[in-house]
Amino acid sequence: MVESVSAYNKLEDLLRDLVDECRQYTKLGHVATYIPILSKADPNKIGICIHTIDNKEIAVGDVDDEFSIQSISKTISLIITYTLIKDMNIIKNTFGVEASANKFNSLIQLETLSDIPTNPMINSGAIACAGLLVDKISFDEFIDFARKLCDSDKIRLSEETYMSEKTTGFRNYAIAYLLKSKNIIKTDVEKTLDFYFKMCSLLVTARSLSRYGSVLANGGTAPWSKTSLIDYKTARRTKTLMQTCGMYDASGYFALDVGMPTKSGVGGGLLSIADNKCGIGVFSPSLDEKGNSVAGCRMLEILSRTLKLHNFDKDYSIIDRLL
Amino acid sequence: MVESVSAYNKLEDLLRDLVDECRQYTKLGHVATYIPILSKADPNKIGICIHTIDNKEIAVGDVDDEFSIQSISKTISLIITYTLIKDMNIIKNTFGVEASANKFNSLIQLETLSDIPTNPMINSGAIACAGLLVDKISFDEFIDFARKLCDSDKIRLSEETYMSEKTTGFRNYAIAYLLKSKNIIKTDVEKTLDFYFKMCSLLVTARSLSRYGSVLANGGTAPWSKTSLIDYKTARRTKTLMQTCGMYDASGYFALDVGMPTKSGVGGGLLSIADNKCGIGVFSPSLDEKGNSVAGCRMLEILSRTLKLHNFDKDYSIIDRLL
Amino acid sequence: MVESVSAYNKLEDLLRDLVDECRQYTKLGHVATYIPILSKADPNKIGICIHTIDNKEIAVGDVDDEFSIQSISKTISLIITYTLIKDMNIIKNTFGVEASANKFNSLIQLETLSDIPTNPMINSGAIACAGLLVDKISFDEFIDFARKLCDSDKIRLSEETYMSEKTTGFRNYAIAYLLKSKNIIKTDVEKTLDFYFKMCSLLVTARSLSRYGSVLANGGTAPWSKTSLIDYKTARRTKTLMQTCGMYDASGYFALDVGMPTKSGVGGGLLSIADNKCGIGVFSPSLDEKGNSVAGCRMLEILSRTLKLHNFDKDYSIIDRLL
Amino acid sequence: MVESVSAYNKLEDLLRDLVDECRQYTKLGHVATYIPILSKADPNKIGICIHTIDNKEIAVGDVDDEFSIQSISKTISLIITYTLIKDMNIIKNTFGVEASANKFNSLIQLETLSDIPTNPMINSGAIACAGLLVDKISFDEFIDFARKLCDSDKIRLSEETYMSEKTTGFRNYAIAYLLKSKNIIKTDVEKTLDFYFKMCSLLVTARSLSRYGSVLANGGTAPWSKTSLIDYKTARRTKTLMQTCGMYDASGYFALDVGMPTKSGVGGGLLSIADNKCGIGVFSPSLDEKGNSVAGCRMLEILSRTLKLHNFDKDYSIIDRLL
Repeated sequence: MVESVSAYNKLEDLLRDLVDECRQYTKLGHVATYIPILSKADPNKIGICIHTIDNKEIAVGDVDDEFSIQSISKTISLIITYTLIKDMNIIKNTFGVEASANKFNSLIQLETLSDIPTNPMINSGAIACAGLLVDKISFDEFIDFARKLCDSDKIRLSEETYMSEKTTGFRNYAIAYLLKSKNIIKTDVEKTLDFYFKMCSLLVTARSLSRYGSVLANGGTAPWSKTSLIDYKTARRTKTLMQTCGMYDASGYFALDVGMPTKSGVGGGLLSIADNKCGIGVFSPSLDEKGNSVAGCRMLEILSRTLKLHNFDKDYSIIDRLL
Repeated sequence: MVESVSAYNKLEDLLRDLVDECRQYTKLGHVATYIPILSKADPNKIGICIHTIDNKEIAVGDVDDEFSIQSISKTISLIITYTLIKDMNIIKNTFGVEASANKFNSLIQLETLSDIPTNPMINSGAIACAGLLVDKISFDEFIDFARKLCDSDKIRLSEETYMSEKTTGFRNYAIAYLLKSKNIIKTDVEKTLDFYFKMCSLLVTARSLSRYGSVLANGGTAPWSKTSLIDYKTARRTKTLMQTCGMYDASGYFALDVGMPTKSGVGGGLLSIADNKCGIGVFSPSLDEKGNSVAGCRMLEILSRTLKLHNFDKDYSIIDRLL
Repeated sequence: MVESVSAYNKLEDLLRDLVDECRQYTKLGHVATYIPILSKADPNKIGICIHTIDNKEIAVGDVDDEFSIQSISKTISLIITYTLIKDMNIIKNTFGVEASANKFNSLIQLETLSDIPTNPMINSGAIACAGLLVDKISFDEFIDFARKLCDSDKIRLSEETYMSEKTTGFRNYAIAYLLKSKNIIKTDVEKTLDFYFKMCSLLVTARSLSRYGSVLANGGTAPWSKTSLIDYKTARRTKTLMQTCGMYDASGYFALDVGMPTKSGVGGGLLSIADNKCGIGVFSPSLDEKGNSVAGCRMLEILSRTLKLHNFDKDYSIIDRLL
Repeated sequence: MVESVSAYNKLEDLLRDLVDECRQYTKLGHVATYIPILSKADPNKIGICIHTIDNKEIAVGDVDDEFSIQSISKTISLIITYTLIKDMNIIKNTFGVEASANKFNSLIQLETLSDIPTNPMINSGAIACAGLLVDKISFDEFIDFARKLCDSDKIRLSEETYMSEKTTGFRNYAIAYLLKSKNIIKTDVEKTLDFYFKMCSLLVTARSLSRYGSVLANGGTAPWSKTSLIDYKTARRTKTLMQTCGMYDASGYFALDVGMPTKSGVGGGLLSIADNKCGIGVFSPSLDEKGNSVAGCRMLEILSRTLKLHNFDKDYSIIDRLL
């Protein structure tokens, strides 16, 4: 039982028990079906990797299985937006920063509340970001940046996922054209969507996400190279938006009970952060009805409680003892 | 200029300059008018008080002026709800924990998204809480608890505010009856509203709010008596909900740029928390269009940046030097 | 089979077969339950009465059973509003005249689309009307007028229905207070609701409704007394609003397939009009999911087709032959 | 003054005065700008043509000026849908028949109320119709049918309008993709939109619309050839839907004050019907804020009152005298 944390001497042992204990929760969800290729995922997969700001890495389970990054890519497009767009007014006219209690692919608030997407962590906001970026960087540059963040040359585009998104993602087309009609997307819609679909189709692993998380936890500086990949303030903003809006319409519940900035993707990945301590990458593609990994969320919840990683309940001496 | 923090040796000096610097912002807003009595407030008032978990208190400006607590009382009703209602299912069927990008007095999400209020920090959620509490405690007990939290016997009901709320708060009646029609309020509507209007009509001061904040910052234990007033987990939940939903539909912006759990009230008060360090009470009744104190928010923003109090950018050595 | 209209010589025979044929449909619905007293209605009751502008009356079935008028009273409050309020700007600021695809008791459009109720045939619009009337006429005068329209002294208030509405109609309270908060109701909310609940609680019969309908069909003049009870233009407006908004969110379907101005009530009544020919009163309290009488709607649909009473398919020679 | 109808002996004289009197109203509106080509229209143009079911035609003003049919084409796609799709369930799963108080190009009700467009007279409903038709008929066949309805070989596609729609109608793309995501459009979105944009881009005249109206007024039979162009029941349904939903979110007002089935288009056209008497075609491209021709609506309103053409106030002896 993981919760008896004092019984452990090594984090790896604890993580192994955690994975074993939470494997049962994969039965409670379903792999995503909204694009055909996602439905081919193996619902039994489960893995977790922790990468500390001291560059230690503890990995258990299916941490090297590739899966599509999906919505977790919204954090990368956000970082690039904050990095490349210096005029804050352009950003303020493109997306808001308020959490939304609506579904991730909702169009309602675009129609009723404001003319801009509520935040950059839902589809409309990320598509609006893509509209800002598509004329500024090539998608190869996007991949390059993702590889640096994840310290992995293996990050690459899944052509199959990309084609699946492109040929069936009709609601995203609807969102993009609505943004175009409101002049929030100022460039070509098809090019914007292409960029967005490609972003979502990057293949990552739990291990690579944990490294990316450690960069954010470390204020933007890569633990392995000591070079700054993300501006400190941009890292802070990204963590905050993950905290308030990262888990779709379960963000509030997650902030309450887990309390770590986390972003999920319907590919089954979770990118989580214990600030100033470590990044956590999780993979388990069986999803709950909100679109979040069932076993993955459960693992983070138990970990937060056991290791005291909650934002308002931090005590890093516990994890330090196990590292 | 407050931002040159190294030029200061005492927090009091810094706060004095902060108040002087931010007084100009009171001109940019307006006192609340939605109930008549609020419009009588003096828009030029401004004060800030910091109370640390070591029981130090630094106060500058109009910190002993009484004003009505308004929505800040929603944190107290939430704490009592978590304390008295042991069955989490009852709580889950009464309010959600997701942030909302809607106005504080909106009825829309009650109709379109779910049958329960989105969270306990907006009117509908707090009225639903009042419905849970009204048959369990008397309002005198509510005041008693508020006095303990604020370490002040002066906390008392403003009959004038209460009558103003009661005779003009029609939208709150609408919300309460809608909750009754959905059976979320299971008891008498008029009694529930009475409790709610009274809650909002407590007179507090910036000084008393800073003390209340220090209890939350300290995990629920009063710095002055070392007695636990709030269960540790309840304190954590309250701070989290203040962080995600405390500033109406500006909560996301506030989490991003200030990054301290904060709850505002249209009486001009702000209750803010630097976790594990101090509570901050602010008073300045000139409000922006979201209903938050203009100068108050500005003071917290500058303070967060200068003293490094942001959730994802903490460095308490700076404030420690000044204390 | 009623549809072989040529086989009939007398309208009464046709109506008798119609009632027999449609009695089965009472099994497909349910009596209303939203206020307790309505659930006591006998779902097997069915009756229809036709009253012509030549003052002929043909009645079959349970035409003298009393039931509460419910929403059909909205036509009377509308007529009185058009009669008493001479300043059209007051009316235009109180309710719109557009049909709504929302439920009869919806609050959404009040929040999202405009500040006034969409039309006077839904609860919000009728409550807004009541707010205009309550300071201008006594409820006794309302009853008197209803008696004249229905040529019946038996029209009276059901105290039991009224008390049931008053003690359980929480959503209507919510609507009324929302209207008050928007200053659409300018007088006392409780008095307004009292008037509204009483309006809904009048006891009528299918026979009395048919007479009321004949007045409207006859341009406002009572066939029995040749006196004008309703201004011609007001009668025209009332018929139009019954046509476009009379059947809740089934108004469009009804206009399409039946094509007679009709207003339904959840008491099981239907007031229908073949313009320039006759009024039709129907009673059958088993309702469909929209809140309209199942068997009643079916009778009107068959009658419209068989006797060619549809607005855009009129041939009164058929009914004239049978009268 | 047109209202003194007894002073006239010929309808043509009355119409001439009507046009003169209403020309001033063209100053109160603006030509459409939502696609670039519409903004080139001459706002001073005004014309009206009446075509009776006896094949008489009275035309005054700019009745032979070509303009794009825009939303009036929605009546034609509706007629073809009712004609070609025999399975009513397919139709019921494609669009509703309820009026909507929302803007013509709204997406909200698609998200909140039901999964199908509220009615076939708003963009979403007509695009859904186009999705049913595009695999069943060629656009040449659509034009051919339009020519027959209008008794004019001059009806033709404006390539310029079509290209303007296609390159700037982003909101319509959004609607179409949303319908595709809900599987209401089952065929290719681009092909469907192409069909829809072409429909809207037909060039018609007030004269040709009056003829089309006379066919509907005559139960589907062309007055000039005595051949049935539209099934009787389909004509009835089309008139009903024009009555309840033909004037965007001013349909209710129009039904109340004008009371003739009418469909407007943002090209400045109006197709109106005095059932069993005549069709009326109107052209005047200066629009009010709802998107309806200002002077055109005013002409129809005066005509309805003067000639007693209102649905619930008909007296055709007046127009008969003038014909």
